[in-house]
Amino acid sequence: MNINGKTIFFDTPPVITGSAGVVGKKEGEGPLAQDFDAIFEDTTMGQQSFELAESAMLHDAIIRALTNAQESPANVNFILSGDLLDQCMGSAFAIKDLEIPSIGLFGACSTMALSLSVGAMLIDGGADCVVAGTSSHFCSSERQFRFPLEYGGQRPPSAQWTVTGAGSAVLKKEGEGVKISAISIGTICDLGITDANNMGAAMAPAAEKTIYEFLRDSGSKPEDYDLILTGDLGYTGSQLLYELMENEHGIDLRSVHNDCGLMIFNLKEQDVNSGGSGCGCSGSVLCSHILKRMKKGELKKVLFVATGALLSPTSNKQGNPIPSIAHAVLLEA
Amino acid sequence: MNINGKTIFFDTPPVITGSAGVVGKKEGEGPLAQDFDAIFEDTTMGQQSFELAESAMLHDAIIRALTNAQESPANVNFILSGDLLDQCMGSAFAIKDLEIPSIGLFGACSTMALSLSVGAMLIDGGADCVVAGTSSHFCSSERQFRFPLEYGGQRPPSAQWTVTGAGSAVLKKEGEGVKISAISIGTICDLGITDANNMGAAMAPAAEKTIYEFLRDSGSKPEDYDLILTGDLGYTGSQLLYELMENEHGIDLRSVHNDCGLMIFNLKEQDVNSGGSGCGCSGSVLCSHILKRMKKGELKKVLFVATGALLSPTSNKQGNPIPSIAHAVLLEA
Repeated sequence: MNINGKTIFFDTPPVITGSAGVVGKKEGEGPLAQDFDAIFEDTTMGQQSFELAESAMLHDAIIRALTNAQESPANVNFILSGDLLDQCMGSAFAIKDLEIPSIGLFGACSTMALSLSVGAMLIDGGADCVVAGTSSHFCSSERQFRFPLEYGGQRPPSAQWTVTGAGSAVLKKEGEGVKISAISIGTICDLGITDANNMGAAMAPAAEKTIYEFLRDSGSKPEDYDLILTGDLGYTGSQLLYELMENEHGIDLRSVHNDCGLMIFNLKEQDVNSGGSGCGCSGSVLCSHILKRMKKGELKKVLFVATGALLSPTSNKQGNPIPSIAHAVLLEA
Repeated sequence: MNINGKTIFFDTPPVITGSAGVVGKKEGEGPLAQDFDAIFEDTTMGQQSFELAESAMLHDAIIRALTNAQESPANVNFILSGDLLDQCMGSAFAIKDLEIPSIGLFGACSTMALSLSVGAMLIDGGADCVVAGTSSHFCSSERQFRFPLEYGGQRPPSAQWTVTGAGSAVLKKEGEGVKISAISIGTICDLGITDANNMGAAMAPAAEKTIYEFLRDSGSKPEDYDLILTGDLGYTGSQLLYELMENEHGIDLRSVHNDCGLMIFNLKEQDVNSGGSGCGCSGSVLCSHILKRMKKGELKKVLFVATGALLSPTSNKQGNPIPSIAHAVLLEA
C-alpha cells in the first residue's frame, strides 16, 4: 500500500470477483428490484426471531457471493463482517457454521465500506481470498434502537427506514471484476447531534470529511467520478452534505452524487420519510445494483462512501451525542 | 504474510514499540498490581456513567501506550479497537477526539488478540504505525449482560468477574520491543452453551481449536513456548481446555498454560469465583505485566490466545447458544 495523507493506494488493486445483494419484500418493491440477487417475500426467513432472520439473510448473501465468484468457503482466508445489532449478533449467527476465520467489525452503517477497505488491505498484504459482508433488518433494528414495532410510533420527516437486506463481496488478488484502487479509513466526527431520528445530520459531517480528504489526497475533483455514492445519508443528510461541502470547501457535489438510502426506495410512494438506512442498505445496493452497472460498463469510476452513526441506545438514552464515521472505497471497472 | 493453514507468519515481524495496561481499584489489589501502568481508585473516572468511565480508561491506556512508544497520534495510520458494550460505545467515545482513522472491531473478550492480529497484518502490508486497544468495566458490563448492580444477584461458581481496565499497544514495522512473529484468526465455535454465567465453558472449545491449529500450522509443541496464555477462560474454562486438548489431541497444556483471568485476581481472597473476564482483562494483563516480563527477558516466547464469547443479551434471552472465538498472537522477545 502507498499512503498519502489518509488515503491508501494499491499498486495492484484487489478485485471483487463476485458479489450479491439480497433484500426483503419492501425493498423488492422499490426502484432497484430487478438488480437484487434475491427478494425475500417472507422477511422472517422462517426463523424464530427477526435477529436470526437477519443472520439468515446475511448467510444467504455470503453464499451467493461465493457462488458468483466460483469460490469455496475453504479457500477464504478471512471473512470480515459486522452489523447494527448488539454485539454484532447478525454476523455471529450468519457465519458461525462456515468455518472461515472471522474478523468481526463494528462500523454501524459504514460496515460495507469498512469491510471492503480492510479486506482490500489484507489482499494487498498477501491474503489470497477475503469475503466482506454486512446486514440489517427493519424489525430487529427498530425495536433495538427506537420503539417496539407494536407501539407504532410516529416517525419525523428526518427519520430513515432501516433496510431489510444484506450484501457480500468476494475479494481476490487477481481475476475479472471491479477493482478497488484506493481506500480511506475515516476518523470519528461528533457535531453534537443527539436525535436518533436524524441520523443523516449526525453522519453528514463524517461524509464531508472523508470525501474532502479523499479528493485532496488523490488530487481529484468530483467531475473525475461517474458517481460519488454515499450510504446512507437519506434526503436530510444528503442536503446537509451539499451545504457542508459548498460552505467548507467550495465544492459542489450535486451533479455527481447519489445516496444508497435515496436509491433503494421510492421516497414518496413507499412512505420511508428521509430514505433508507442500515448496514444492509449500502451493502445490498453496492453489491447488486452498483457492481452490476459497473460490470456492464455503465459506470466506470465510483467513489463509495458508506457512513455510520455509531449510535448506542445506552449512550443515546444517557443524552450523549451520536459519533459518526465514513469510510471511502474507490471502485474502478 | 506467509499463510500455512490458518496461521499467518511474518518475514519481518511487526514490533510492539509501546504499550500500557490500566485498571480499577479491585484489579489494583490483585497479584499484578505493581505492573499496571495506572490504578484508578475512583472507577467512575469522574464521568457521568460507567460506560463513559470505561471510555475514559481506554483513552488513558491509548495515550500512555503512545507516550511509551514516543509516538504522536498524528503519525498513527489506524487505530483498531472494540469492546463489549452495545455498538462498541466504549471505543467510540474513547477515540472520537483523537483524529486517528478508526477501524472498529468486534471480538468480545478476544479483542486484544484480534486488534493485535489485524494491526500486525496491516503493518506487514505497509502501514507505518497502528494502535490496538480494548477495554471493559465491571459496572457497565454487569448491568448490560446480567443484572442491574443494585439487584445484587448471586453469582454461581462458574461466573467470572468482568475486569475494569483497558489495554493498548503501538505497533510499528521497526523498532525496539516485543515482536509479533505469527498470528491466527479463529473460526467461530458453538457447542451449545447458553449459560451467560458460564463463559469459560462457551469459550474453551474455541481456545482448544485455535491453539491446536496454531501448533499444527507452526509445527510446534507446547514445550516450545515459555507460556501459552489464554484470556479469559477463568478456572472453569481452563480446566475444560485441559480436558479438551488431552482428549481430542493428546496434548497436555498444564505445565505451560496460564490464563489472564486467573492471574489478575487472587481467586479465593477477592471473591471473584472463576476469575476475571472482559476485554480489559487480557488487554491490561498483556499490555502491562506480560510485555514487561518479556522486555526483562523473563519470558521469551509467548503464545497469546484471547478468547471471546460473542454473547448478545438479546440472543441469550431468546435462548440461543453463545458462539465463541479465539485468536492467537505469537509474541517473541
